[in-house]
Amino acid sequence: MGKYAFGVDVGGTTVKLGLFDVEGQLLEKWEIPTNKENAGAGILPDTARSILAKMQERQISEADLAGIGIGAPGAYDSEGNLVGSSVNLGWSDFSIPEKMKAYFNVPIKAVNDANAAAFGEMWMGAGKGYKNMVLVTLGTGVGGGIIVNEHIVTGANGAGGEIGHIHIEDNEAECCNCKNKGCLEQYASATGLVRLAKRRLAKDDTPSILRNDKVSAKSVFDAVKEKDAVAVEIAEEFGDYLGKGLAAVAGVVNPEAFVIGGGVSKAGEILFTYIRPCFEKYAYAPCRNAKFVLATLGNDAGIYGAAGLILH
Amino acid sequence: MGKYAFGVDVGGTTVKLGLFDVEGQLLEKWEIPTNKENAGAGILPDTARSILAKMQERQISEADLAGIGIGAPGAYDSEGNLVGSSVNLGWSDFSIPEKMKAYFNVPIKAVNDANAAAFGEMWMGAGKGYKNMVLVTLGTGVGGGIIVNEHIVTGANGAGGEIGHIHIEDNEAECCNCKNKGCLEQYASATGLVRLAKRRLAKDDTPSILRNDKVSAKSVFDAVKEKDAVAVEIAEEFGDYLGKGLAAVAGVVNPEAFVIGGGVSKAGEILFTYIRPCFEKYAYAPCRNAKFVLATLGNDAGIYGAAGLILH
Repeated sequence: MGKYAFGVDVGGTTVKLGLFDVEGQLLEKWEIPTNKENAGAGILPDTARSILAKMQERQISEADLAGIGIGAPGAYDSEGNLVGSSVNLGWSDFSIPEKMKAYFNVPIKAVNDANAAAFGEMWMGAGKGYKNMVLVTLGTGVGGGIIVNEHIVTGANGAGGEIGHIHIEDNEAECCNCKNKGCLEQYASATGLVRLAKRRLAKDDTPSILRNDKVSAKSVFDAVKEKDAVAVEIAEEFGDYLGKGLAAVAGVVNPEAFVIGGGVSKAGEILFTYIRPCFEKYAYAPCRNAKFVLATLGNDAGIYGAAGLILH
Repeated sequence: MGKYAFGVDVGGTTVKLGLFDVEGQLLEKWEIPTNKENAGAGILPDTARSILAKMQERQISEADLAGIGIGAPGAYDSEGNLVGSSVNLGWSDFSIPEKMKAYFNVPIKAVNDANAAAFGEMWMGAGKGYKNMVLVTLGTGVGGGIIVNEHIVTGANGAGGEIGHIHIEDNEAECCNCKNKGCLEQYASATGLVRLAKRRLAKDDTPSILRNDKVSAKSVFDAVKEKDAVAVEIAEEFGDYLGKGLAAVAGVVNPEAFVIGGGVSKAGEILFTYIRPCFEKYAYAPCRNAKFVLATLGNDAGIYGAAGLILH
């Protein structure tokens, strides 16, 4: 086994890279731009060259290298093959490990980026010590990654952990991005929270600091901290939807902990005041003691998890 | 590795036992009564003696034995320790493998009985060939067992796969056995289906063959086969609830197949006419191609799965 591993997080704008030692310490991180020309054909070659340059700079030989882990948008099977397409990058149906093996004779693993982040939080973040945990990313959408017995749940088509599209509301007129109606993501993402806020504000004229400015996930929870009654109502509705969705997840995989990340999680522990009672209301009793914790690795969760695929 | 394994399925009335060869062929099965006196203290000793007698009868030595697998009601952690109590048997907090090791010096494994059945269906039943599948047992309640990458999802407290208590209906006045309101089990179990039927029949006077006799899960689907309009409405409602619940499950673990067992499944393939369109309506697109198949091992699923813990 080598002394180092690289963790790669391929995003729509930049590719993040990290060099880790076998203890899982992040020695250095950097980024390169994501070149989406030619259906993203240059992304992995660029990544490989960047890693090779770093190896030369640090005088790391291939024998020193335990492997390279890669997280990227899209659905990957358990061998790291992209199933279907990754619209964001222009990629479709190919094997990341196969492509990278043109450059390296070391173990290469590839998974979905949200799953990589979940694995990272389990390995070195807020989920450390938990064998069964769920990362819930509350950003533009609601993403997720499920860890069962320290392994990522990939699922049949790489769609394991896509909890943002669990149906949660029968009475919804608007469509989710996925074309269904009533998905968790429509209420519990940053965008969803703003939608709930706008609906509530339009309902009547109750005074609220939220009426002063543009509503955002941040402004809602800032107003909650100011004990703004309308904002509290919105947070309660958000918590009810999210608690209900996570209770369903708990009924399937019975995790020890939910790790909450993404932009909305910047509101902090106050989120749990609204999620936890609803989760407990809806969850089956033996699943009810799951812990709620805030993610700690932020934007580095992906490179940690990718490296963890090799090192953990 | 030995030539044989025993699979044991501990029930409230009888303990089922099966002798399997290493190919997974069931050579012989039999039952002994479940002795629930003294908080079930005699159940495992009775089981051990029955296995020892069978070994003597067949001249199977301990060296010939690959191991013994046991499925039983209750929540078991990944080491086979009972977490909390198994009300049905009177058991609480102990290790099945530890207890059985007083009689045998072979590998012993223990899991929850529903999970054992799921594992059995994956190993030798309707789920054969699927690495990611969900057994859904529609009986008095709704039980489940989740298989991810050919492994049982036990969860933190052994409550993985308890999908019967996923919250599915906000407008429910009656309590589920678990004390929550609106659990999947309240609509999709045999009992739940009868409840839906009674509610529908009480709603108006539309003629229906269901009015002639006592309503049961069987009579509802028999009437559906006769194209009874009221029965079809009931089946549609049942299918909507179950499709919605299984779509949530699919959003978490993205299985290749749902294997449907339990008493209600005796209605046959016609069930899928009602479940599948609703499942597809509620499921996230990448999870939508999950197959629906009927369980094939019936009451033997538990002994198969228990033996499979050793042999697969």
